[in-house]
Amino acid sequence: MSRIVQKYGGTSMGDVGRIKKVAERIKLAIDQGSEVVAVVSARAGVTNELIARSREITRNPSEREMDMLLSVGEQETIALTALALHELGVEAVSFTGAQAGIQTDAIHTKAKIQTINAEVVEAQLQTGKVVIVAGFQGVNEHGHITTFGRGGSDLSAVAIASAVKADRCEIYTDVDGVYTADPRVVAKAQKIDEISYDEMLELASSGSKVMQSRSVEFAHKHNVVFEVRSSFNFNRGTIVKEEVPQMEKVVVRGIAVDKDQAKVIVSNILDKPGSAARVFQALADASIVVDMIVQNEGRNGIANLTFTVPQGDTMRAQKALEPVLDELGGGHVAVHENVAKLSVVGVGMKTHSGVAADLFTALARAEVNIDLITTSEIKISVVVDQDKVDEAARVVHTAFGLDAS
Amino acid sequence: MSRIVQKYGGTSMGDVGRIKKVAERIKLAIDQGSEVVAVVSARAGVTNELIARSREITRNPSEREMDMLLSVGEQETIALTALALHELGVEAVSFTGAQAGIQTDAIHTKAKIQTINAEVVEAQLQTGKVVIVAGFQGVNEHGHITTFGRGGSDLSAVAIASAVKADRCEIYTDVDGVYTADPRVVAKAQKIDEISYDEMLELASSGSKVMQSRSVEFAHKHNVVFEVRSSFNFNRGTIVKEEVPQMEKVVVRGIAVDKDQAKVIVSNILDKPGSAARVFQALADASIVVDMIVQNEGRNGIANLTFTVPQGDTMRAQKALEPVLDELGGGHVAVHENVAKLSVVGVGMKTHSGVAADLFTALARAEVNIDLITTSEIKISVVVDQDKVDEAARVVHTAFGLDAS
Repeated sequence: MSRIVQKYGGTSMGDVGRIKKVAERIKLAIDQGSEVVAVVSARAGVTNELIARSREITRNPSEREMDMLLSVGEQETIALTALALHELGVEAVSFTGAQAGIQTDAIHTKAKIQTINAEVVEAQLQTGKVVIVAGFQGVNEHGHITTFGRGGSDLSAVAIASAVKADRCEIYTDVDGVYTADPRVVAKAQKIDEISYDEMLELASSGSKVMQSRSVEFAHKHNVVFEVRSSFNFNRGTIVKEEVPQMEKVVVRGIAVDKDQAKVIVSNILDKPGSAARVFQALADASIVVDMIVQNEGRNGIANLTFTVPQGDTMRAQKALEPVLDELGGGHVAVHENVAKLSVVGVGMKTHSGVAADLFTALARAEVNIDLITTSEIKISVVVDQDKVDEAARVVHTAFGLDAS
Repeated sequence: MSRIVQKYGGTSMGDVGRIKKVAERIKLAIDQGSEVVAVVSARAGVTNELIARSREITRNPSEREMDMLLSVGEQETIALTALALHELGVEAVSFTGAQAGIQTDAIHTKAKIQTINAEVVEAQLQTGKVVIVAGFQGVNEHGHITTFGRGGSDLSAVAIASAVKADRCEIYTDVDGVYTADPRVVAKAQKIDEISYDEMLELASSGSKVMQSRSVEFAHKHNVVFEVRSSFNFNRGTIVKEEVPQMEKVVVRGIAVDKDQAKVIVSNILDKPGSAARVFQALADASIVVDMIVQNEGRNGIANLTFTVPQGDTMRAQKALEPVLDELGGGHVAVHENVAKLSVVGVGMKTHSGVAADLFTALARAEVNIDLITTSEIKISVVVDQDKVDEAARVVHTAFGLDAS
């Protein structure tokens, strides 16, 4: 008998009609002789409604109380899903994150899962019941409810799949799987059948919105193979798993575009040891995530630093840097928001040379100017004009042979 | 330092604006140096919305899953109340019923409180925090969420007041307290300052809707003095407590009218031992609550039985009785729905004679015909025409000297 963990997101749980459809899909797996744990999200929009209500009260809410508040969204859907299964004649029982034994650290609103005590879930599976677990939430050592932040239900699913030693973990969403590029931008993008954890992580951190990095990281660390697929059809999705040798035959697995980037240039600062450290410490102290960093070689004792930050953080970055610049000889800060990052990702880069050259050649032919470049073992990212990034993505997609025939 | 348990019902928690008002009222008690545990209900209407959603899925829901579903209403309001207190600079922390240590039996949707482990609440009170507890809900020995049914938050409040040895328990509602009669019917009704548990119980079971019987019973059993008062003003309410000798000076404390009554007459059955038992066993098996019962003396071996049931149960009562009547000689069932019950309640009846006579005289003068009569130590109830019961209530209110001057 195979054991499956299925995760259904907020769109799949959108209303009572959709919840019934989810129940039917779970029943299919049961009818095929599987054991099923279903991890569900809140109905789409409910979490935002609850946040709006809290905002009518305070702009600076206690995170502990926000977790108490936000965790009701999934508690509603687990009960409704169980009822929908009962109506189909399928035995089912629902559990909150706390009841399902999902133990987390104490960091409210962005808690990390520490352990899962799967005894309760296991016992129910043994009696032949479908177990419905509230995603996105757990409980800390003091018995307080915690939540995991955006994408938290994926994390719940992967962690439970690991804890109950599931044979399969299916992440149901509103797209068919992971694509070689965003199909809204690159019409010839194809669904990827298999992808390694590392590639998935690089795509996630490069702007692909299918899954949050930490769920993929958790799956990688615990070696949970999962499939991203649509709850609205029965197409096969994308399997995410440990890299196997044949994956390296494909040089570029996919392309990601991130338009939420701004370029910051710090010019005219003293080129001495510790200058860069002072700059990035100031940004870290302001909780600003810096992505790409390029330092030009200094001349005449003067250096320039260029880096990218999320667009929403540019004001805060400038403010954080002001006091530092005075110390560093009175440099200057300039911000360019009309930029975007294009990344090509593939484990094949490890064994194929010339990927960077092919990328730059393709961009040059399309007359796209490259502003910044960074590379990792399986990724090359470039910053280009935001106006040109969609066209760049299409050109690069074709150049690396990713176009659907 | 005095310790107060305050309970706020669904109307008091109706929207964010009202929740803020509740927080202000709690702050007043804190500013006066009290420790406060606040027990809150779901926002008015939320429970019905959740029930409606479940009904779109099934007409026959699992009660365990309904408890999972319905308990989210209070979980939302405890968090919002805590946030509203924080915004006023008051330290506060919220707990679900389970977290607050409210242990119940396993009867879902109408669970009974078994014990309260008040350690968590006590510890928080010791640190100076307001503790907000979700009403209406607890947890059974298997860790499953249970709810208490209608009026359940009152029960939570009374039970917690007992567990934390509160000096006062305040039940906030949308009326000023317990009245000598329903002010919508009897314009001269007065608020009662003090009432005994027994009187309050008799009024509750006689149609007064201020509180459910079991909360009063629980308070009586654990000797919790509580005050019913309005959350919309600062008037003193009605204190409910153990009977004291001076209470007996008042013969009639209050009058209750129950229009949800139907009279059932079972006529022409064999007058033999066990006939009545067969009739009422059949009704009990159908879970029909029978209120007043009168059996006429039998003649010629034939007897008549008359009793009252809630109006919604008349069809089921007739159906339940059909097979029994065949056994009992082929009797006949007649139902009269145009009836209502008027009750006068007061511990003073124990020591004052002639109350029944005074009641019947008053009704006779108003030309109200009495259909059935039952009495207990502190209550006399009569069934009269429903069309005449409001007028009867006014006449009796005056006759027993209850009118406001």
